[in-house]
Amino acid sequence: MRRYHHLPRIAAIGGGTGLSTMLRGLKARTGNITAIVTVTDDGGGSGVLRRELGMLPPGDIRSCILALANAEPVMQKALGYRFTEGSLAGQNLGNLVLAALNDLSGSFDGAVEALSQVLAITGRVLPVSDADLVLQAEFDDGALVRGETHITDYKKTHDAQIRRMSLDPARPAALPGVLEAIRGADMIVLSPGSLYTSVIPNLLTEGVSDAIRASRAVKVYVVNIMTQDGETDRYTAADHVRALLDHGGQGLFQYALINDLPVDEAVLAAYEREGGAPVTADDDELRALGVEPVYATVASWKNSLARHDPAALADALMALYHDKAETRKAD
Amino acid sequence: MRRYHHLPRIAAIGGGTGLSTMLRGLKARTGNITAIVTVTDDGGGSGVLRRELGMLPPGDIRSCILALANAEPVMQKALGYRFTEGSLAGQNLGNLVLAALNDLSGSFDGAVEALSQVLAITGRVLPVSDADLVLQAEFDDGALVRGETHITDYKKTHDAQIRRMSLDPARPAALPGVLEAIRGADMIVLSPGSLYTSVIPNLLTEGVSDAIRASRAVKVYVVNIMTQDGETDRYTAADHVRALLDHGGQGLFQYALINDLPVDEAVLAAYEREGGAPVTADDDELRALGVEPVYATVASWKNSLARHDPAALADALMALYHDKAETRKAD
Repeated sequence: MRRYHHLPRIAAIGGGTGLSTMLRGLKARTGNITAIVTVTDDGGGSGVLRRELGMLPPGDIRSCILALANAEPVMQKALGYRFTEGSLAGQNLGNLVLAALNDLSGSFDGAVEALSQVLAITGRVLPVSDADLVLQAEFDDGALVRGETHITDYKKTHDAQIRRMSLDPARPAALPGVLEAIRGADMIVLSPGSLYTSVIPNLLTEGVSDAIRASRAVKVYVVNIMTQDGETDRYTAADHVRALLDHGGQGLFQYALINDLPVDEAVLAAYEREGGAPVTADDDELRALGVEPVYATVASWKNSLARHDPAALADALMALYHDKAETRKAD
Repeated sequence: MRRYHHLPRIAAIGGGTGLSTMLRGLKARTGNITAIVTVTDDGGGSGVLRRELGMLPPGDIRSCILALANAEPVMQKALGYRFTEGSLAGQNLGNLVLAALNDLSGSFDGAVEALSQVLAITGRVLPVSDADLVLQAEFDDGALVRGETHITDYKKTHDAQIRRMSLDPARPAALPGVLEAIRGADMIVLSPGSLYTSVIPNLLTEGVSDAIRASRAVKVYVVNIMTQDGETDRYTAADHVRALLDHGGQGLFQYALINDLPVDEAVLAAYEREGGAPVTADDDELRALGVEPVYATVASWKNSLARHDPAALADALMALYHDKAETRKAD
């Protein structure tokens, strides 16, 4: 039985641009996607809504919903619109829609579901938890910094490395649907994006890491193309993996998907000015961490930004899945 | 040929709650509705958007679009949502959507059309003009007051009557679609609502009054149930009609539809406290103005507010149409 030829059920875990970029590509490959999204953002328009309306931060969720949307283009464009003038400057319309639905439906996940329906999305988008969470970072200089924005600010202004992330309240329950999606997945993908503020927070909710570890799915972490000033300065691929395992525990995933396209000169220069550089990989070091490196040409350059190409990343993930699921299902 | 048995094409002209209430009822009777909506509001959330974003005031338009909408209930509920907390307090989500679409499409009527499509409305909603208009009132104490909010404030705080309304710039062009809709209509209805700030401004745009007068449609003005403090204190039905004819010219419409349901005691008391009273009608006076009074039971009471009942008003209008169109088409 060639079970590996069905469309895999994918659980994609992360936040920010990295997750939504990946979803844009996966959407065309399978309808069985659950995006599991961090809710620890406290900056920008999301931060304002969080403080003023007492709601969970909507920005990352909104990006994922739009990435999976099948509604009229005008609708999608409108919900991605950001006001630039007056008292609304910096607010994103889709976030305001989630704010209204949050009040009308009485719960954040109700709001997320309502907007998902209205936009006829492929798959599902779930906040990892419905708890009001503060992200905390313990630095190797002893500082304990609270709040996502403060953490990246601290790392940018101090020569310190993050030692450990935590949530307040600690170990909040993941939404039941999140654990179900992880348990039912054929492939689990930890998305590229801000390692400490978008990916790791998901691993700190109760049940998520254990559910990933217990799963027999193909489990892969998509390594960032570039290091990120304030989060992963000078990090190699193995450093990224080590941080994930430090927070989620050993044996969390089997594969690290690494970009093999040399970084464009102009992009290199632009990142250098901001303290970013290509993430380098050492296969032996990765294997020592119990993770198999998988290389693929998945980067693209646009406006001096390095980003995963949605289609190329989705193709690489599907190829990995079909390759590895075959091996696994054969036993 | 019983042409009067087709579904009439209706042009409904006005603004505010009066127009949207009427549309809610008409929507179930005919798909051929064009709502022609004033754009002189400068108060509340619409006023903020108008000042900060340099757009036309979206509130009245949004109410009409929602009244004619056929989208999912959750969508309609969300677009009618008003924020009550934080820096967004007083802003209506549907207005913000129109603001985003206004910027994205580059024109206000483009925004109105886009939202109308997204909400799959019955009929059409058109701003009467795309000009940035300031409403002006000349009072009988000699004052010239600029701006809709200032006008109602002035009338509330001074014992003065409005003598004449005007627009700045004077006689702005009506949108071509507005004049086409009036010319093509089988019935033209001037909506209930604020006489001087919702209905009359439409008559001051270039071409609208002339197009109404030239039309052979059944033409009816729906008289308000109650007088409105700051606009029509102590006005009879004939006073309302006289104000319309003073601004739109003689021969503008043939019928005045007047509520005949005695006003509820509790409603009377509530309005009395706010300086409002039932609008009384004198048939001879109306006929002297060239207008035939038509009585119907069209009022309803809710939370001490007098409002036209959408279904009853639509029934009364359709009955009037079928009755009068028969007579007219017979010649």
